[in-house]
This record gives sequence, structure tokens and C-alpha cells, in this order.
Amino acid sequence: MKKPYIKIPGSVTAPKGFSASGVFCDIKTLGTGKGSDKGLKKDLALIVSDQEAVVAGMFTTNQVKAAPVRWCLHRLASGKTRGVVINSGNANACTGEKGVLDTKETASLTASILGTTPDCIWVCSTGRIGLPLPMDRLRTGIDQAYHQLGSTRKHATDAAEAILTSDARKKQIALEVQIGSSRVRIGGICKGAGMIEPGMSVDGLSPAPRSALHATMLAFITTDAKITQKALQAAIEQAVALSFNRISVDGDMSTNDTVMAMANGTAGNPLISKRSAKDLTIFKEALNHLTLEMARLMVRDGEGVSRMINLHLKGALTATEADAAARTVGRSSLVKTSWFGGDPNWGRVMDALGYSQATIDERLVDIGYAVPGNSRIYFALKKGTPTQTHLSVLRKITQRREFDLHINLNLGKAATTFITSDLTEDYVDFNKGE
Amino acid sequence: MKKPYIKIPGSVTAPKGFSASGVFCDIKTLGTGKGSDKGLKKDLALIVSDQEAVVAGMFTTNQVKAAPVRWCLHRLASGKTRGVVINSGNANACTGEKGVLDTKETASLTASILGTTPDCIWVCSTGRIGLPLPMDRLRTGIDQAYHQLGSTRKHATDAAEAILTSDARKKQIALEVQIGSSRVRIGGICKGAGMIEPGMSVDGLSPAPRSALHATMLAFITTDAKITQKALQAAIEQAVALSFNRISVDGDMSTNDTVMAMANGTAGNPLISKRSAKDLTIFKEALNHLTLEMARLMVRDGEGVSRMINLHLKGALTATEADAAARTVGRSSLVKTSWFGGDPNWGRVMDALGYSQATIDERLVDIGYAVPGNSRIYFALKKGTPTQTHLSVLRKITQRREFDLHINLNLGKAATTFITSDLTEDYVDFNKGE
Repeated sequence: MKKPYIKIPGSVTAPKGFSASGVFCDIKTLGTGKGSDKGLKKDLALIVSDQEAVVAGMFTTNQVKAAPVRWCLHRLASGKTRGVVINSGNANACTGEKGVLDTKETASLTASILGTTPDCIWVCSTGRIGLPLPMDRLRTGIDQAYHQLGSTRKHATDAAEAILTSDARKKQIALEVQIGSSRVRIGGICKGAGMIEPGMSVDGLSPAPRSALHATMLAFITTDAKITQKALQAAIEQAVALSFNRISVDGDMSTNDTVMAMANGTAGNPLISKRSAKDLTIFKEALNHLTLEMARLMVRDGEGVSRMINLHLKGALTATEADAAARTVGRSSLVKTSWFGGDPNWGRVMDALGYSQATIDERLVDIGYAVPGNSRIYFALKKGTPTQTHLSVLRKITQRREFDLHINLNLGKAATTFITSDLTEDYVDFNKGE
Repeated sequence: MKKPYIKIPGSVTAPKGFSASGVFCDIKTLGTGKGSDKGLKKDLALIVSDQEAVVAGMFTTNQVKAAPVRWCLHRLASGKTRGVVINSGNANACTGEKGVLDTKETASLTASILGTTPDCIWVCSTGRIGLPLPMDRLRTGIDQAYHQLGSTRKHATDAAEAILTSDARKKQIALEVQIGSSRVRIGGICKGAGMIEPGMSVDGLSPAPRSALHATMLAFITTDAKITQKALQAAIEQAVALSFNRISVDGDMSTNDTVMAMANGTAGNPLISKRSAKDLTIFKEALNHLTLEMARLMVRDGEGVSRMINLHLKGALTATEADAAARTVGRSSLVKTSWFGGDPNWGRVMDALGYSQATIDERLVDIGYAVPGNSRIYFALKKGTPTQTHLSVLRKITQRREFDLHINLNLGKAATTFITSDLTEDYVDFNKGE
């Protein structure tokens, strides 16, 4: 069947009625003077909808939440937005009352420039925890960012750059999808390279299990679809559950994880709502593809990552146990370091399964490796017993930049997919100091 | 108050009536010829009691259990032993029916040489998972080890060396304690450097929570105390709960973790039982000291470890939550890499607390650092707000080889101590391949 969506160039400014910008206002250096004239990358982004848009979001379930996360959580109630201001280089987390006031001022300032109310402006921050925001620079930055707003691909790229922290690459994507007789566009930018194992929910509490949560990842999605807030929220919840909440770089869930989706309705399609099942399904399918691609870009660009692993686990007793088993394998330091070495050390995979919260019977477990896109699985272990597959055959697969790991617990019918990475010396080196 | 025990030289042969040996029989290289004539370290150890001893044990709660672990679990029922044979270089885990038969043969062979029944011989293995044991070499090794048995410190040191895998140093300790008018000795050797976060229980199931488990660590304790099996088992359960089950190097719980304690009663002390409360308390205190010192040796010698951290957490709602909070901080890749850099990055500590299973209120948390043995705590965070303590003061502490981290959740009365380490490039390098 033909996919109902196609990939198009650009990202958040691809949908009609959105503008963006990214500027440098020296947030990270905190007045050390380092970098301001050394071409340091941009650190403040603005994404704006020309007209009021419906908004949906998902937030970190970490109990420690940065001030901007709490701000956005409260803004979600109105379901309306004009845009978002994002800074990198400082998380504005664990910053006490000042942090709360700084977020509020950021929103107020942006709102007054755009001629709207603070309630319609979302704020996101990412960077080091525990340092006060340099508000004087932020004020200048917001003003600059406003004056540089525009709707070209260059403008979106500037925003995509400004939200990065330790990321090596900008992450952008856009799709076009047919809804009724209208072409609807969806675009997205995201960041996230370390402190990556998101577990987001709509209220920052349930239903994502607390153990399932860990990154600073930020994702901003724009669409010109005409869609109700409830349908958009439902779509984004499913999309996040199938993408960002199923990846891990280092198993650490951030205080700042946020996904924001804005829909301004300028495409003129028939309204998508929970009642228009067919259109909603088409929209969701495109959105799911977009967020999964963004999640994969994140893992591929993870701090120090040299290999990406698609972990397909099945045969678990329950969905919760499937999730626990996959996450425990995907987080194990010993499993991840063996992947770094390109070593199919399935014994470490078994060890991690054994101490996971999932029920396993070691006499039933199958473990195999495959080349992505190739259906042939080379098994190292079948029903708990090592196979005759030669180590060199497995190694050829595990030494690729990306490979599939197939685990079958052979106990029940629950399955999951989890995307993870290796653990490298570069990761340790990168994170060992400031 | 004067401690009732003193440290003495030696280890497992310090108590009367025990002999030990350690030999090289080329288990790891599996016939590649590598090392046999290159002075590779010993890989097979024997520890024997001259007469039948009572035995107590604790075993990994990993659902995947090596064949020797299952063997010892079943042997515990009789409560009696003559000794243990241990090989390094091969875990005999995930080896199917052959693994079970190999363990049985190892016990039978050792038993017949010692003139006892297989039921009285424990077997332990540590090394790579999933490879068959080279039994021909093991048979030769057992014979050699029997002929080299002796009771000098050199003999104990040979055994201490033979059980090592990735450990850089041998780990030995012995204490002498007064029970009634008798001097009782307790000695121990242990190994463990990677796959270290043990969670052991007497039945390999309850009561240690499954999430609390992860290493190959092995510890062998001998004593000439006269003590009932029940009292010895109770003592070892408490000792393990306060030591080995409270450490982590990499958060991975092994398939092979085992602690074994043998008491042969040759010291002639009045019988220690659950009814002789005072003597049992004195014995337990010495044993607790012995196992904690062994646990500390393990973390200090952990794979690639450059710093050891004593994490003191209090103010949790329940003991389970205290444990969860401490383990989550002590396992976080981002926290551990910042420690490697000597960076007091308390923001990452807060982040880990926030995604732990423990309830926290970020507005109440205190985080401080101290020099071990010094009661002054330098706080970085008080009631969720950064203090004025200068970063350079904190750094002086976190750049030490060992430091204390104090966390107060200020919510309840539960507390715990957890000993952990940094995560270094050496760890990754060591574990990336075979």
C-alpha cells in the first residue's frame, strides 16, 4: 500500500503560517566572554504561528521539573498557543523561585512583542542544571530573535541549530500528507544527545511508569492541519509512546524533556477530530513516522554513540514486562560496552534479562542478530542453548553502525521495540567535566 | 568502646583446620595455547576444611543462574560441607545440560579425592558466559590443586589469586575475635570487579528485590568458630545485606554471585547459637566488619574505577525508597561520569533522584559533600536551593580518590548507605571486547 505521506524539504516552517528564528546571545558562557566572538553556535530560538494555534504537549515524568516545564504544563490547559521561545546552554532547573520568575518574564516579554498574552507562549530550556539564567542576555536575545523571524528553510534551520546542546547535528524533518482534498504539512525539529531516555506524559505524572523515564530531549512540531486540540493531543501521545519514549542513550531521564505540537489550521482541510476516524488515522500515521524519524536521529547523534541498535523483544508475559526487559538490556553498561566493541556478547544480554523486572525462563530464551531491513535472523541462542552459528557471522552484524537484536522470551504474547546505542569512551570523556 | 575484634594477617587459612591452594590449568584460553607458558595467573582454587563444617550461603537473585549456583543452592539444604572448588575464566552459565553435568562431575571428582560425598562439595565459577567448561583441564587442575593444599598464608594467597578475573588485586582479610575464653578467627577472600551490583538471598529468590541486584562477585569465608548452621546463616544474611548487597560498580547483577561461609568449630569456643545472644552479637559484629571491608576492596578495585563514593542517603519515606534513591544515583551514567571528572555536578544527582522510584520533593532536598572521616559537610544544595558554597571548595572534595556524598530528602526517617564508583574510559575500554 502506498504511504499517504511524502517527505518534503524543511521543517517547522514548511507548514503554512509559521515562522522561526535562531540567534546567539551567549547564554552558556555566563559572562566569561568565551565564545561570543568565536562563532559559537546559536542558543535562542523562536517558533511562532501567525495566528492562534491549538497546542498539545508531553512532559518529563521526572519529579524534578525545570521551571519552564512547569510553566508549559500549566499552559496546556488553555489548549491555545502563539509560539515557543527556547534557550540552550542552561536548563533553568533547580533554580528555585528565581527560575520560576525568569520563565514567567521570558514568556511575558515574548508575548508583548508578539502582541499576545503570556499564557499563549511556551518556554523551553536545556543545558546545565542549577545555574541561574542570564536574563539580561535572554532579553536581548528575544528581541533579536523576533526581528529575525521568517518562513524560509534557512529560518527553520537557524532555530534547529539554536536548540542544540551536545548534539553534533541539526535534526529536522517535514512531511506532506493528503487529508480530504487538502495537502497538509507537518514539520519538526528536535534536540537531544545525552541524558536521553525520555518518559513523557501529558501531565508530567502518569501514565508512563517512572522507571521508564530518562533525557533532555526537546521536540517542536508544527502543522497547518485543521485539527481539534483533543485529537492533536491524542495523536501526540501515541506518537511519543511509539518513538521518544522508546529510546535510550544513557538511561538518564531529564528534568526538561518536552514535546510540543502546534496546529494552526491554515491548510484548510476538513476538521480532523476524534470523530473523523479515517482522517485522524492518516494524520497519526504521518505524525508517528515523523516522531520515529526524529527519535532515530537523536539516538544516531547521541553523545559518543558509534552504533545504533534496534531491539525487538517478543514473547513477554505482559507489555510492562516486555518494556522492562528491553529497557534493562538497552541500559546495561556491560551490554552497551560490548556493542561498542562490535562484540555479540549475548551472555551479557542474558544476564541483563535475568535481573530485569520481567519474568524469564532461561531455558526458553532465543537471542539473534540481523541486518536492518533483512528478514534473516542469525540466532546465537535458541531455547537457552547456544547455537552452532559461528561467532564471525554474528560479529559481521554487530560490527555494523546499525543492527537489529531479536529477543524472544517464548513465554507470552507481549512485544516491544526499543532503540538504543552503545556506550563509548567518547561518551565518558564528553561527560566527565564541564 | 574497644572493638572486640582485631585484624590479623592472612585470610581463609588463618582459622584453624582449613587448607587452600590455587593453580593454573589454562581454563580461559580454551585450547588456544595463549598464556599457558606466559605466566598467566592461576585459575583454579580449592578451600578445604579438615573436618566437616557447617555452611551458610547467599546467591544471586538473577533469574539466569549459572549451573554451579544452582548446585550450591541445593547443597545448602544439608547445611554441611567439606569445602569448595572454584574456577575463574569461565562462568559455566547459559551452558545447558552440559553445564549441569560439568558442575556435578567437578563436585564428584573433588569429593572422591577428599574422601567425602559430592553433596559436601560446593562449586563456583566466574568468567565469560555461554562457553562450555574445558573439563579435561579442570580434571587435571583439581588433582594439582589437591596436591598443593596447605595452611600457610602463601596457600591462601594462591587461592585468592586463582579466583580473580578482571580484578587487579587479590582481596584477603582475617580477624580474630574473643568468644568466651577462646580466640576465634574469621578469614575471607573475594573477587569482583565488573558486573558488580550484587543482590543476593539465601534461596536465590526472595527477599532481595530483583531490581537491587547485579556482579560476578564471589566471597569465601572460613571460621574456626563453633556455631550452629542457623546462627551462621542468620549472620551471613545480615552481613551481606550490609555489605555486598550495598555496592555497585556498573549496575549489572551477575548470574554467578555467591557468598559461602564455612565454620568448622575447631576454636573450641562455647557454641554460638541464636540463644547465645551476646556471643552471636560479637561474632556478627566481626563478620559485618569483614564483609564490609571486602565489599570496599571490590569497589576500590572495580574495573577502571578511579574514585570510590560513600553515598549516605537519609530522609526517605521508606527503607525501600531510600534504597531505590541511592541505587539510582549510584548507577546513573551521567552522575558517574561527572565523578570521573572530579566534578561536583549535583544537578545530575538531583535529576537521578527525580526519576528514581523514591518519592522526592525537589524543594526539600539537601545535597552535600564531605571528606571521609571528617564530619563537616559542605552543602551544594539546601532545601532545593543552591548554596553559596564555592564550586572550588566542592571540587577539592570530589577530586579525591574517595569522598562522601550526603543526600537528605527531608521527607521521612529511612536512611541507607551505598558504596559506588565513577564510570571511566578505562571501564569502557576494558569491557568493549573479549
